[in-house]
Amino acid sequence: MTKIFSTDRALRFGDCDISGTAYFPAYVNILNGVNEEFWTHIGFPWHDIIWNERWGTPTVHLSCDFSKPSMFGETLTFDLGVIRLGRSSVTLRHQISCEGQQRWTSTQVLAASDLDKHSSIPWPDAVRDTLQGWVTPQEELGF
Amino acid sequence: MTKIFSTDRALRFGDCDISGTAYFPAYVNILNGVNEEFWTHIGFPWHDIIWNERWGTPTVHLSCDFSKPSMFGETLTFDLGVIRLGRSSVTLRHQISCEGQQRWTSTQVLAASDLDKHSSIPWPDAVRDTLQGWVTPQEELGF
Amino acid sequence: MTKIFSTDRALRFGDCDISGTAYFPAYVNILNGVNEEFWTHIGFPWHDIIWNERWGTPTVHLSCDFSKPSMFGETLTFDLGVIRLGRSSVTLRHQISCEGQQRWTSTQVLAASDLDKHSSIPWPDAVRDTLQGWVTPQEELGF
Amino acid sequence: MTKIFSTDRALRFGDCDISGTAYFPAYVNILNGVNEEFWTHIGFPWHDIIWNERWGTPTVHLSCDFSKPSMFGETLTFDLGVIRLGRSSVTLRHQISCEGQQRWTSTQVLAASDLDKHSSIPWPDAVRDTLQGWVTPQEELGF
Repeated sequence: MTKIFSTDRALRFGDCDISGTAYFPAYVNILNGVNEEFWTHIGFPWHDIIWNERWGTPTVHLSCDFSKPSMFGETLTFDLGVIRLGRSSVTLRHQISCEGQQRWTSTQVLAASDLDKHSSIPWPDAVRDTLQGWVTPQEELGF
Repeated sequence: MTKIFSTDRALRFGDCDISGTAYFPAYVNILNGVNEEFWTHIGFPWHDIIWNERWGTPTVHLSCDFSKPSMFGETLTFDLGVIRLGRSSVTLRHQISCEGQQRWTSTQVLAASDLDKHSSIPWPDAVRDTLQGWVTPQEELGF
Repeated sequence: MTKIFSTDRALRFGDCDISGTAYFPAYVNILNGVNEEFWTHIGFPWHDIIWNERWGTPTVHLSCDFSKPSMFGETLTFDLGVIRLGRSSVTLRHQISCEGQQRWTSTQVLAASDLDKHSSIPWPDAVRDTLQGWVTPQEELGF
Repeated sequence: MTKIFSTDRALRFGDCDISGTAYFPAYVNILNGVNEEFWTHIGFPWHDIIWNERWGTPTVHLSCDFSKPSMFGETLTFDLGVIRLGRSSVTLRHQISCEGQQRWTSTQVLAASDLDKHSSIPWPDAVRDTLQGWVTPQEELGF
């Protein structure tokens, strides 16, 4: 079964540069907020795990292909799939589109990490089990 | 000859997240400022080409590997090499380190683009000639 | 009649600093997005007036009092009132609270401005008439 | 004696919005970096006091008057004066100018704060003594 998490974001004035299109560091800030929303959706809000359990999910790899510009004022759809799960990492695949037209894609690897020691940890069992239920091969995602 | 452009950046309070390490969208914002400094260094400041010639160098691909965290208060060295030059694109390779320890690397592709039409253009001759003088194979860069 | 525009914002990971509370420049970035939402609500989306009519509403004055910190993960309510309308300016009053507890307030003056000449212009008639319908004395707002 | 701390900042691509002038939340992010540089200059780098002593200087009040726009590519001079010192607060006055032309001014109040309890603390003696040496009445600053 293909599982995709989808959410929309308006491209705001503050996200755009002098060209009137998205400034790419603003794009990855938005992407991080989408990730945060995904983790809340699956039952592990970052503010809970950070405040109460002292671990987080820093990004260890990020790859983005910006194929078409997005203009200030457009509403973008962010689709997120989980394409691989490791002992302490997870690989996400993102597609960002506007009215069906793909604008950019991204592959991102997050690692479970102890916030105080800044070292990786295995996923807690409940997190691994939940993420496992989301794993979809990239070829099934279609992006 | 290996040509590397180097510049330093303090990792400031506003660049760091709750973990006390760099927030990765802040990292790519800093990286963009380093690029801007490089273009000024080679004689084509972005503010000149954007204001006076109406073209720019949007990022069409970005890949980052964050291997070690950087802590608030550290001073980072950004090394930039030009590893490939196309008709209207250029591939940059970045290494970010602190006191000789590599923290992250990035490969970035910029495309010359008409700011009003949002479409790619060939490099102006003077720009291509200058960038050509910077091209160094990635294996010579050492990162 | 007291007219207040209200909207909620989650305080996200990327908005917070090493203390786990909102970084104040992130706060004013959020505030700007709330303003943008207000202008869409009253029928003059910034992307329309900027793209199609070449004018905007830059901030000429901003005053903020941060009385209590807000923590990563909280959902904040932004209340916005229009307390004064001039020939080419408007004064907004903001209250930001969480579950009824006031966290910060702000007074902000926007000026209608020609985007190309960077000079102020009188409000277009339809905009002035609409804003006039929102004017509420600050003492009636209660913040 | 009038004591003013001065430092320059280039207005970068990433600091500017669609109008080609500074985005005001980016302005206050830059201002925060200037503050950070000032605290390092006077011997109390934020990264030292935050990492080692667990206190910080959150902003409790900020007031800004943006009188003239600044354009992408300009280099701005930030002048900072200390105009008032309280038991646990300090009031800073900022002037931002370009080639002698004032662009904006700001009054900012910082409060010494325990990072873990999020409550104000009196200035440590060495900090208060140092700040005291910087106090200059606003009328002497000239901005």
